[in-house]
Amino acid sequence: MKHYTSIHDIDNIKKWIEDAKTLKANPLQHVALGKHMTIGLLFFNSSLRTRLSTQKAALNLGMNPIVMNVSGDAWGLEFDDGTIMNGNTAEHIKEAAAVVSQYCDIIAVRAFPTLTDKAKDESEQVLNAFMEYASVPIVNMESATGHPLQGLTDALTISEFSQKAKPKVVLSWAPHIKALPHAVANSFTQAMQKMDVEFVIANPEGYDLNPEITGDTPIYHNQEEAFKDADFIYTKNWSAYDAYGKVINKGTDWMITKDKIGDAKFMHCLPVRRNVVVEDAVLDSHNSIVIEQANNRTYAAQLVLKKILENL
Amino acid sequence: MKHYTSIHDIDNIKKWIEDAKTLKANPLQHVALGKHMTIGLLFFNSSLRTRLSTQKAALNLGMNPIVMNVSGDAWGLEFDDGTIMNGNTAEHIKEAAAVVSQYCDIIAVRAFPTLTDKAKDESEQVLNAFMEYASVPIVNMESATGHPLQGLTDALTISEFSQKAKPKVVLSWAPHIKALPHAVANSFTQAMQKMDVEFVIANPEGYDLNPEITGDTPIYHNQEEAFKDADFIYTKNWSAYDAYGKVINKGTDWMITKDKIGDAKFMHCLPVRRNVVVEDAVLDSHNSIVIEQANNRTYAAQLVLKKILENL
Amino acid sequence: MKHYTSIHDIDNIKKWIEDAKTLKANPLQHVALGKHMTIGLLFFNSSLRTRLSTQKAALNLGMNPIVMNVSGDAWGLEFDDGTIMNGNTAEHIKEAAAVVSQYCDIIAVRAFPTLTDKAKDESEQVLNAFMEYASVPIVNMESATGHPLQGLTDALTISEFSQKAKPKVVLSWAPHIKALPHAVANSFTQAMQKMDVEFVIANPEGYDLNPEITGDTPIYHNQEEAFKDADFIYTKNWSAYDAYGKVINKGTDWMITKDKIGDAKFMHCLPVRRNVVVEDAVLDSHNSIVIEQANNRTYAAQLVLKKILENL
Repeated sequence: MKHYTSIHDIDNIKKWIEDAKTLKANPLQHVALGKHMTIGLLFFNSSLRTRLSTQKAALNLGMNPIVMNVSGDAWGLEFDDGTIMNGNTAEHIKEAAAVVSQYCDIIAVRAFPTLTDKAKDESEQVLNAFMEYASVPIVNMESATGHPLQGLTDALTISEFSQKAKPKVVLSWAPHIKALPHAVANSFTQAMQKMDVEFVIANPEGYDLNPEITGDTPIYHNQEEAFKDADFIYTKNWSAYDAYGKVINKGTDWMITKDKIGDAKFMHCLPVRRNVVVEDAVLDSHNSIVIEQANNRTYAAQLVLKKILENL
Repeated sequence: MKHYTSIHDIDNIKKWIEDAKTLKANPLQHVALGKHMTIGLLFFNSSLRTRLSTQKAALNLGMNPIVMNVSGDAWGLEFDDGTIMNGNTAEHIKEAAAVVSQYCDIIAVRAFPTLTDKAKDESEQVLNAFMEYASVPIVNMESATGHPLQGLTDALTISEFSQKAKPKVVLSWAPHIKALPHAVANSFTQAMQKMDVEFVIANPEGYDLNPEITGDTPIYHNQEEAFKDADFIYTKNWSAYDAYGKVINKGTDWMITKDKIGDAKFMHCLPVRRNVVVEDAVLDSHNSIVIEQANNRTYAAQLVLKKILENL
Repeated sequence: MKHYTSIHDIDNIKKWIEDAKTLKANPLQHVALGKHMTIGLLFFNSSLRTRLSTQKAALNLGMNPIVMNVSGDAWGLEFDDGTIMNGNTAEHIKEAAAVVSQYCDIIAVRAFPTLTDKAKDESEQVLNAFMEYASVPIVNMESATGHPLQGLTDALTISEFSQKAKPKVVLSWAPHIKALPHAVANSFTQAMQKMDVEFVIANPEGYDLNPEITGDTPIYHNQEEAFKDADFIYTKNWSAYDAYGKVINKGTDWMITKDKIGDAKFMHCLPVRRNVVVEDAVLDSHNSIVIEQANNRTYAAQLVLKKILENL
């Protein structure tokens, strides 16, 4: 594996999960692997978990993390070809990616979608430009359409908490006041499709995800029906995909409540808006495993970095 | 000691000062203690000395510092319970503190007061929320009502520069154009109350600090009288406590001048506005020990981190 | 050498270039030199290459970099003497520089010119204040009038790519939409004046650089004439020096094109605005060595830091 930009880069999810568990049991066992190497963490958008857990993962491998908020610390980058750059962008990704590759052994990038231009978002312009113009491995710290470090984390967490050979996992849309990306939902869907689970999606009408990603996964427009006998309820808001980037349902009906989830484990990638997405009673109960899930961000990132380092 | 959030966490200030002097004489003697451990420095407010000296202290102990400007790098955190989070805050401290605890072995937090809501400030909502919801030790890098790393620094500095068995130490209010917190004055007062010094406070009428903190400490409303025979004059502006957070004295009478201080040593936590709080002639004289005082920030922080690491 | 603030600090550029090549061949050979030492990188302005390459250089020498965006992370600093600081600046450089010196073994500073006050810019107020009030070595990461880490980088790059005993090197002004500093052009000019090259400058009338810097270097106001038989064409925009800080030529005639440069190598310090300063066809051709040039930023910085560390 050179880059890690999508759940598709996981060749054997079962093996990866076992490897991540091994790392988690002894996080410093490979601390010599990344010695004297640097990872550049480039943020085009805000981050808490990804920012900290990826640094922690790199440190566990002996690497030196260098963090940069691209717009705040430097300037706007240009991604279009052939532009006469007399506007707000001061440097083209062709130069930026090639240059940063010379200071960092791995580049990790976070860049959210526009949510207004579907074609542009689906082209993964930023991520692909880094892959094209950088000369070192690229790690996706959440791109326009995917968040594969989160997806791997989620698979690991479900594996840890599962008490059945084939648990039922539901990805449920929930309300939010803002238009949010599809990245987490997409990568979770792709990860679950690789796992030995019964996986279904629940969302209001008009909120179906990209059918090229959901594929054969059953989609329910009735939350109650979907939640029946669920072992894991993974919640996430996303904006409409068909009416791209729009908030078309402003109701609170889909908020996750204790009544709705029964004995199922509650998962969320965080940050989560309490009493909008999910009520306090769920997050404050033993059903919630969101903190344990966030902890696994470190080991998912560490496994990815380890695989990349071993392949350098 | 688990957390370090207040001068009250110092069990024996004399012993702590001796320990800090020992560290200062050989700052790298415990460089193996924090190896492969991380400290998260979370800033809700601006910082120069605290930001740099706490990193230096951590590095001297072999730790990896991870710095985050919470609002700029991530997003607004919610501290109230039961809120329907449909406003400006995107994550509750319950999740944030628990999650960060999994990436960092110690969390250090800076969060200033509102200066408009006395009850809220005195509840130390942010600091207490971290103590409640984090699972790792918390260090106060200046909270609503205290700055105990500064207070310990100040005690160490007075110990170093004192030429008497029991020096006279004055904490003097001085003018400023903005409404400032009481944190530094509070922690300095608490530290001096633990020291073998003659300690008095000088401030204009209406500027008395919280009586629960000043206790039996004499308060002068006449600066000249207070300064008589002083060995150390510690200067700091604060906004009114009774008329909470107000600037009720806009005069320049209380500015510290060379004439006023005589042979006394001049101290200030910095940053200091020259010729507003104190005239150039004081800061540029041999009486000023503000630079040496700032240097001790490293060793105060290092002692605190060392004690926490030894107790992990 | 104590500080590195100007190309004039290079005592023997030929020797320095050889030393930098040796470092580049084995960047980790001195990794023990800076062990347990910190370098504070203080940015008053945006930075990408300088930010990352100086960190990388420090890490290659075993140092711990501490990065601070001065205004964003802390507050405005005052540089004027005797000011009554009741405005926007909260701390005087006298305190700030002295204090930071106690946390960092080396301080590196980036501070751009005003481009409105020539006398102030030429006084190098920020850089000189750090040299005056700090007690540790100062490295110039681009000041009002010079960028000597870039100038050393450029000399190294020309040495690497030169195929002649005495190549012809042209510094050419090129168009830009903003008023830019003279720092890069000044330091490049000073570096070339020390090298065994045929060096000429090309710029439109009204754009002659400071004559105290250009000295005997030939200045052409005809780009085509200057480019004749050139081996290296170093391009950079700068605002007018006589009509200080003004953009007096808004034409596109001076943009660098493939036709113009022929077989010459194309250099630029980056960031570069494509199709404003230089057309795509140049940057995307084998003539462009801007990426290799940027790579040398690491080794120029590393050589400077190594020389400073050896002299501590």
